Amino acid sequence: MSQDLERLFNPRSVAVIGASRNVKSISGQPLWALAGHGYRGRLYPVNPKYDEVEGHRCYPSVEALPEVPDLALILVAAAGVPGMLREVGRKGIAFCIIFSSGFSETGEAGRALQAEIAAIAREYGIGVVGPNCQGMIGVTDDVYAGFGSAFSGDCFRKGTLSMTTQSGGFGYGVIILAEEAGLGFRSLVSTGNESGLTTTDFIDWFVRDPQTRVIGAYMEGVKDAYRLLEVGDRALLADKPVLVWKVGNTEVGGRAALSHTANLGGALALYEAAFEQRGMIRVRDANELIDYTQAFASGKRPAGNRVAIVTISGGGGILMADQCVESGLSVGPLTPESERKLKDIIPAFGSWQNPIDITAGIFNNPEMLAQAMRIIVDDPSVDSIVVINASLQGDIALARAKELVELDRTTSKPIMTAWSARTKFAEAAYRTLAEAGIPRYPTPVACAKALAALTRFAEAQRRRGRERAEPVLSLERPQARALLAARTADLAEHEAKALVAQYGIPVTREVLATDRSQAVAAAREIGFPVVMKVQSADIAHKTEAGGVALGLADAAAVERAWDSIMASARAVVPGARIEGISVQEMVSGGTELIVGVQNDPLFGPAVMVGLGGIYAEVFRDTSFRLAPLTRSVAEAMVRELKCFPLLDGARGRPKADVEALVDALLALSAMAVDLRDGLSELDINPLVVLERGRGVRALDALARPRAGSA
Amino acid sequence: MSQDLERLFNPRSVAVIGASRNVKSISGQPLWALAGHGYRGRLYPVNPKYDEVEGHRCYPSVEALPEVPDLALILVAAAGVPGMLREVGRKGIAFCIIFSSGFSETGEAGRALQAEIAAIAREYGIGVVGPNCQGMIGVTDDVYAGFGSAFSGDCFRKGTLSMTTQSGGFGYGVIILAEEAGLGFRSLVSTGNESGLTTTDFIDWFVRDPQTRVIGAYMEGVKDAYRLLEVGDRALLADKPVLVWKVGNTEVGGRAALSHTANLGGALALYEAAFEQRGMIRVRDANELIDYTQAFASGKRPAGNRVAIVTISGGGGILMADQCVESGLSVGPLTPESERKLKDIIPAFGSWQNPIDITAGIFNNPEMLAQAMRIIVDDPSVDSIVVINASLQGDIALARAKELVELDRTTSKPIMTAWSARTKFAEAAYRTLAEAGIPRYPTPVACAKALAALTRFAEAQRRRGRERAEPVLSLERPQARALLAARTADLAEHEAKALVAQYGIPVTREVLATDRSQAVAAAREIGFPVVMKVQSADIAHKTEAGGVALGLADAAAVERAWDSIMASARAVVPGARIEGISVQEMVSGGTELIVGVQNDPLFGPAVMVGLGGIYAEVFRDTSFRLAPLTRSVAEAMVRELKCFPLLDGARGRPKADVEALVDALLALSAMAVDLRDGLSELDINPLVVLERGRGVRALDALARPRAGSA
Repeated sequence: MSQDLERLFNPRSVAVIGASRNVKSISGQPLWALAGHGYRGRLYPVNPKYDEVEGHRCYPSVEALPEVPDLALILVAAAGVPGMLREVGRKGIAFCIIFSSGFSETGEAGRALQAEIAAIAREYGIGVVGPNCQGMIGVTDDVYAGFGSAFSGDCFRKGTLSMTTQSGGFGYGVIILAEEAGLGFRSLVSTGNESGLTTTDFIDWFVRDPQTRVIGAYMEGVKDAYRLLEVGDRALLADKPVLVWKVGNTEVGGRAALSHTANLGGALALYEAAFEQRGMIRVRDANELIDYTQAFASGKRPAGNRVAIVTISGGGGILMADQCVESGLSVGPLTPESERKLKDIIPAFGSWQNPIDITAGIFNNPEMLAQAMRIIVDDPSVDSIVVINASLQGDIALARAKELVELDRTTSKPIMTAWSARTKFAEAAYRTLAEAGIPRYPTPVACAKALAALTRFAEAQRRRGRERAEPVLSLERPQARALLAARTADLAEHEAKALVAQYGIPVTREVLATDRSQAVAAAREIGFPVVMKVQSADIAHKTEAGGVALGLADAAAVERAWDSIMASARAVVPGARIEGISVQEMVSGGTELIVGVQNDPLFGPAVMVGLGGIYAEVFRDTSFRLAPLTRSVAEAMVRELKCFPLLDGARGRPKADVEALVDALLALSAMAVDLRDGLSELDINPLVVLERGRGVRALDALARPRAGSA
Repeated sequence: MSQDLERLFNPRSVAVIGASRNVKSISGQPLWALAGHGYRGRLYPVNPKYDEVEGHRCYPSVEALPEVPDLALILVAAAGVPGMLREVGRKGIAFCIIFSSGFSETGEAGRALQAEIAAIAREYGIGVVGPNCQGMIGVTDDVYAGFGSAFSGDCFRKGTLSMTTQSGGFGYGVIILAEEAGLGFRSLVSTGNESGLTTTDFIDWFVRDPQTRVIGAYMEGVKDAYRLLEVGDRALLADKPVLVWKVGNTEVGGRAALSHTANLGGALALYEAAFEQRGMIRVRDANELIDYTQAFASGKRPAGNRVAIVTISGGGGILMADQCVESGLSVGPLTPESERKLKDIIPAFGSWQNPIDITAGIFNNPEMLAQAMRIIVDDPSVDSIVVINASLQGDIALARAKELVELDRTTSKPIMTAWSARTKFAEAAYRTLAEAGIPRYPTPVACAKALAALTRFAEAQRRRGRERAEPVLSLERPQARALLAARTADLAEHEAKALVAQYGIPVTREVLATDRSQAVAAAREIGFPVVMKVQSADIAHKTEAGGVALGLADAAAVERAWDSIMASARAVVPGARIEGISVQEMVSGGTELIVGVQNDPLFGPAVMVGLGGIYAEVFRDTSFRLAPLTRSVAEAMVRELKCFPLLDGARGRPKADVEALVDALLALSAMAVDLRDGLSELDINPLVVLERGRGVRALDALARPRAGSA
């Protein structure tokens, strides 16, 4: 669905269907807004009631138009939309914005009406925006096709940020704030109910649009989430950051999940995984979107996360260092050579160590800043530089700005500034920086966050470049696929473990015994001590039902356990169909994790690893990625767990077999892809990670077929 | 040290000692800034070199001044400061700001010089600001006594925010940003090296200053931290929020700590505890300080955390609800009656449930907002109301603003707005709100955060009111005090447990056995199974040294354990002085926590409770409070632990004896206060919390005397 949307945002002619003469009404505003903002193409109001609207000849029907417009706006009431859309289709108009409300947002009848217009759009190949939207602005081409406050002021500043928003009323607030902050837009579209073109389609187009350099997306949720990885990959390759403002995160999910994987995850975890995997940058307020866009617009990308801080205010340096470290940047030492050189030019009460405090001594020796910067720019242990100029104002400020612009031209390292002089006292300095594309922020905090976003994006580009070169493990197990296709009921322990074993995930050695003597024979074969667990689709909580016995050291213990498990299980769950008792090797030591698969209707399969045991739900220490994983992605999942130090030998513990854990995640990923049509959720809980060289072992598992997940 | 600082911020006359004729120099600026900003008192430059400076008669010495000024500014080089300060003292001047650098920030000699001026100040009772500071602004009285950019522009807007800052260069950036945001100040002081008046002194004064309504503090660290609780308490009683911007948080602490308590805590945890205990509000950037001040300035305080959201943009409502919930506010249902009434006035595609979406239908029916608000204001299940007006502009905006002002007058519930129209299109509406003190924020995110801050402060006032009525457990154990006073070495397990037992904390029943037969006899007395642990000041890590045996079921097992522990301990730590082996009751089940005391040189004693076991350092799930605790404070500590659900019966576990845990924390608090002169750190690790009714048990403990902590 990669469409060329150039003619949507910059149409040569526009039909306004249902145009009204009342410019205060929603149906009156778009024509008025287009004309009033200097639209340079041809405007065709369509309304049988009028001969003329706002000085434009008005046509009785779409058919009657003298040419095929590039874009139609539909402003009639919901019931009339399907008919109008058909006329649009028959005329051969490529794009249509449907403003009308009364569709899927209003219930059953509205959903049917929306399905109807979607079908018409498909039939005629119309690219539909909306319905129930506020329109769009092709800012750089002066195309204001919409209604509301944003359409009734002056033209907005032109720039390189393109944004898609699922909230018209709120999304248009962003361009207003950006205007006040001096940031320009390329295009802005409100997507409404997304019966046709989606948020993802627009991100996709912005990636391909040569005049867009930064992409913004305000989303409540996307229906084609599975495309985010692919579109995100192209954004990384095109060096276009996608700044995502994801809202609607605190509502509680719908159906009850079977597995910990689904319980600990849910839609938000998968959105976060997709964003993480493709370096899409989360923003949490309009000012972050504006600040980060400024940082990205310079075009510079840091080669690493090592930042040098140069400040004329010691306090500002401390705050900046705090915020950099909290944002994942490194404020490390410069080379000894640089420190030596800096010591020669910085006053004794300053600091020639990072953060470099050249102090208010700049008032006595204004050239000190440029001298220090020259040394720092050339330092090989520095990837980016932030300059804190406190409230420097007037001539001394302008001269410093000019120096920074000159320095900036000589280096590929990003230079950013935190500078809080009153605008009226530092206007020339600020303008000098802005013209050269050097970002300026009123506080160190905003500056550090923007630099961190820039740095993470550049790191994601490099990381993703490495990942693309990695092989993806692919496994096909037709037997497993057939098993799941035939099932609606959940797969309990022994079946689920057999399933994961097919993909090479090590499970406990075990035998399903159906009588006491089989159990004893199985235990002898496996080797004492053993574990015994009742197997019944009717018993979800084996331990609570008295259905588990651990550490059985000899045959007599196995026999006693058999009797006690059977008696207890029957007493706790009367009438349970018991398939038998699984006799299993006893696994001692190691670290208990949970790993699993969540096959989401929107995203497709995702893999999870997380802390197991009683703290699983308390700390929710999990990591999700969309499948398929490569090895480095699986490694990153494990390393980002808060409990990773315990696998890595913290507190004098033996190092765990992380390699085997990573292998298991890769196997899960291959399984998740192979079974994507048949598997809804799967948990291995616990997966015990043993000492290095001793592998991992799935102790228990549970799976839900897709057919059983309705 | 509660001084009246009115005459510091609003002096009737000022001596400027070392005044220079060069207004670009630091010693030239203050006189120029005072005069230039319309200072209404008398100015006395003091400098033997001149007869006149800037049109003011200049005096050769302080002694020669014709009156005793309220304030002296010292601008001479560091070496000359003590002499000048003595002159100031002899003249009887009450306050002095020392701008000069070259004191404790520059090393040994500077520290000696600073000690000297501190002594002089004490001798003469001078209230000293600085040295090494940038001065102060008495904004409401037009007193600009300092240097730098903030002193070389126009006068700042007058208001009710007073702020103290430990960073001159950076702190003055805040007043500049506030000015651009339209927020006024009462006073602003840069405290420099704090040889005399401290950050805490200024907060203390602002609490008592009738013209200050909101207090800001930018701090890297305070030397008199133990006073924060007392000053904070008075701030709560005076209904003055203290907005704290604490920086310098990411640096790693100094000396190696003995205990988990000290390791998991440190200075930042104690600052956070103090702020939490007295409802001081953390801010993390200048805009938060400005936004929150706006919220507090209205004077309204919500009676609870239930917020109603009224929006004309569905998307804005979603975002606001997200942010409210994330900030700890509750976005719950209105009463059924309110919902019924709202249903009658809100369009079908809107929402009459909270968040209440009156939709863009407001353009057709502008009175809808006031109608809905009337219902919501009267709803008993609502404590505060936020209104999202998206980009509403022009006349319709002004009319809505007027309605809100009228409504606001009729209710004690705070009303706030998120409103993002361009300033120039909604100027009258914005002014109307500002004049009525109704806060307006450009985005829902900023609005929700500010409301959350307001709500937390009001809640802290109520909570602290309840706490004041609670008794504080006080225990005196002269024997324990004497023991610690006499010790320099750490107290190992059995001594430390004996210590905590004196304060009523239950420890394991145990006997220190010095030979094998004593061990067997002890085990018989305690009852099998038992635990045995080697006791030696030379063996810090008993388990690693093979010095621990668990679950010993009979006499033979005790004898075998004796031999094996002794052999292993001697092999692992050759030459260790072994006091014996402690034979202890074996405690099974329960939840392992760590509790402890950190007796901080700045804050005094603090109590900690946190998750124990192998996850302690990974998740750092801890809660700190400064002693003494009341019962409700101790309860809050336990409830705020992430692992609290596990104590509270999550996952089908039995409920733990939280009451006994709270008792133990109260005992620890009483102990911490009783031993504040002798105890540096103490850990009980683990403290096992058993099932309800079965109490808690200290399994191991460790203590460090103050004399041993140097």
